Amino acid sequence: MDMAPAPTDHVIDIAGRASRLLTRLRTERTRVHAITNAAAQVLTANLLLAAGAIPSLTTAADEVPAFVSRAGGLLVNLGTLDGERRAAIPWAIASARAAGKPWVLDPVFVDASPGRLHLAHLCLAGHPSVLRCNAAEFAALAGREPTSEAVREYAASLQIVVALTGPVDHVTDGTRSVFIENGHAFMARTTAMGCAATALVAAFAVLSPEDALAATAGALVVVGVAGEMAGETAHGPGSFPAAFLDELDRLDATLIARRVRVRAS
Amino acid sequence: MDMAPAPTDHVIDIAGRASRLLTRLRTERTRVHAITNAAAQVLTANLLLAAGAIPSLTTAADEVPAFVSRAGGLLVNLGTLDGERRAAIPWAIASARAAGKPWVLDPVFVDASPGRLHLAHLCLAGHPSVLRCNAAEFAALAGREPTSEAVREYAASLQIVVALTGPVDHVTDGTRSVFIENGHAFMARTTAMGCAATALVAAFAVLSPEDALAATAGALVVVGVAGEMAGETAHGPGSFPAAFLDELDRLDATLIARRVRVRAS
Amino acid sequence: MDMAPAPTDHVIDIAGRASRLLTRLRTERTRVHAITNAAAQVLTANLLLAAGAIPSLTTAADEVPAFVSRAGGLLVNLGTLDGERRAAIPWAIASARAAGKPWVLDPVFVDASPGRLHLAHLCLAGHPSVLRCNAAEFAALAGREPTSEAVREYAASLQIVVALTGPVDHVTDGTRSVFIENGHAFMARTTAMGCAATALVAAFAVLSPEDALAATAGALVVVGVAGEMAGETAHGPGSFPAAFLDELDRLDATLIARRVRVRAS
Repeated sequence: MDMAPAPTDHVIDIAGRASRLLTRLRTERTRVHAITNAAAQVLTANLLLAAGAIPSLTTAADEVPAFVSRAGGLLVNLGTLDGERRAAIPWAIASARAAGKPWVLDPVFVDASPGRLHLAHLCLAGHPSVLRCNAAEFAALAGREPTSEAVREYAASLQIVVALTGPVDHVTDGTRSVFIENGHAFMARTTAMGCAATALVAAFAVLSPEDALAATAGALVVVGVAGEMAGETAHGPGSFPAAFLDELDRLDATLIARRVRVRAS
Repeated sequence: MDMAPAPTDHVIDIAGRASRLLTRLRTERTRVHAITNAAAQVLTANLLLAAGAIPSLTTAADEVPAFVSRAGGLLVNLGTLDGERRAAIPWAIASARAAGKPWVLDPVFVDASPGRLHLAHLCLAGHPSVLRCNAAEFAALAGREPTSEAVREYAASLQIVVALTGPVDHVTDGTRSVFIENGHAFMARTTAMGCAATALVAAFAVLSPEDALAATAGALVVVGVAGEMAGETAHGPGSFPAAFLDELDRLDATLIARRVRVRAS
Repeated sequence: MDMAPAPTDHVIDIAGRASRLLTRLRTERTRVHAITNAAAQVLTANLLLAAGAIPSLTTAADEVPAFVSRAGGLLVNLGTLDGERRAAIPWAIASARAAGKPWVLDPVFVDASPGRLHLAHLCLAGHPSVLRCNAAEFAALAGREPTSEAVREYAASLQIVVALTGPVDHVTDGTRSVFIENGHAFMARTTAMGCAATALVAAFAVLSPEDALAATAGALVVVGVAGEMAGETAHGPGSFPAAFLDELDRLDATLIARRVRVRAS
């Protein structure tokens, strides 16, 4: 008789944690300040609103400290490195660190520009809670191919959580690893979906400062499950973002438990 | 025998004025120049287009006078205060004032940053036709809680129309007040809906310079009714903005008259 | 017995070329770097993704050469002329020219601002493969009314392809002309549709450097046919952009051949 493998406690935990964090977010209405790229601002704000959080997006250097001080956490996305954001990012990071607030780094396109890679390394020295990147960005940052072992070692060396996202997401703190298989092909056909998802990582990190791994994996499960459901109802990549936000808004513990596909090691 | 209360003449007037202004906007294709925040630009342009107006969005200081001179009116939204907009806003206001064109101020997040509050007060000294704000922004600007009486007194002291938006919108010129109950909860779950709505206030103010109160209330009725209808057809907050623009495009006097919920005092 | 006129070989060619270029784009995943206006960035990126291309949008002067060197071609849209873009545009054009890559100019609103008109003339001196403009922009640039003859003469004098878009698009290299009648009224009621369409012109120009006229006409046919189909399924101008991207994603040679309406002369 064939039997489905029993999920490990760890796996059950991720789905449960994701559900509880989502419920808390809707109740506590966590504020997240996002310095993000121009093409990601609207989707990022709408994702945070659909999930229950309250976004702010200011990029002016002289205003960023006040906005970070009102927020629970910070997202720094390097996608648009104009003069305003270059001046604002160090102050935003300093503000988060001074207040002991979690912050998350998304080093968009560091593989494309040497100057951007240099700035990303300077940001990493500010010790984010989480680094979210894709394979090409990881290779540029770490100077090696993104094997599971390499990602774990990089996380261990920086003492942060690294989330390498792709068809399967790998989230690790250097010791534990979670692999998330949820998601939909339309997510890579919609600009800024990954950038917006990382804002939810920041929101969950605020609510779970004691376990940034669970917060990161939980956020990516929530986004992956909502994306999967939206992929089944959307008519194409154009109608996908609205469907995604609609699914995110109605997501609950039952849907997450039914859909979650994670492995731990 | 129970009878529905007869609407006051004033109430009938707001719905009728809203309908006539919308009809005129579709015919006259009023140009509105909007200096607005980065996350609001697309929705603002699309709202103006769906309503019949023609938007422009330039934020460069040396170009703003030319764009304002082509437009019938101006929206100044403080949501993104980058260097470009800080330089452009005073020239835009000066251009509108020199030509006697109405302009509308949306002091986004003045409650979050002291520097922004200071700039907002400088903008108010440029005498906008209308100030549109929420409760927290009003409290920061006026230095007191947003009771109906406080809003009326602030409008009277500035000699402008103040629109305090929220679950119920309060529009006043310091003497007359209109309370608008239309709208839908999804409007607060979509980034920049309030910002975009304020652009329609500017468009209507161009068409009704002799009565900025009626223009403002009319624009908020139009937005509120379209939002209410969209809330009934959208599948969630993600599909709401598109549904809102679709409803705005098809809105007519019959739908407005059937849906409008306003009180005057 | 009435008979439909047989399409000319030239006409068949445009539809066939459009289909083949779209197929190649989906296979080769051409990279296009777009310096475009703030309100067009999301739609431009999503249009390129829906068509099969890979977009990048950076506007920082010191990064633009690296991004153009990774891309197959460049779009320069003058809609937002902030300090960043003014500094970046000449370097982007120089990078494209030095590498022999095609680039496309979209001189948005040159009719509205003398300074912008001057910059557009400087850009034209950098010899784009294609200039895409509307009637008012053409009149400002060429200093005369946009008759078919004037457009042809302007293209011949600059030795580039000019695409004058409107209810009927006119694409000419100064010798040959193609007139495209596809499209839908909602395209003019959605902000940045023309800007985003021009990014597809750049993508097709990369794939067909030997015939920029066919590339341009092919891209406008693809956009026009997808727009026409979307106009039939969308509920209004608000749901139009998503429907457009969905149709673009599913467009194939059969649909193009069935829908295309072009005249050549």
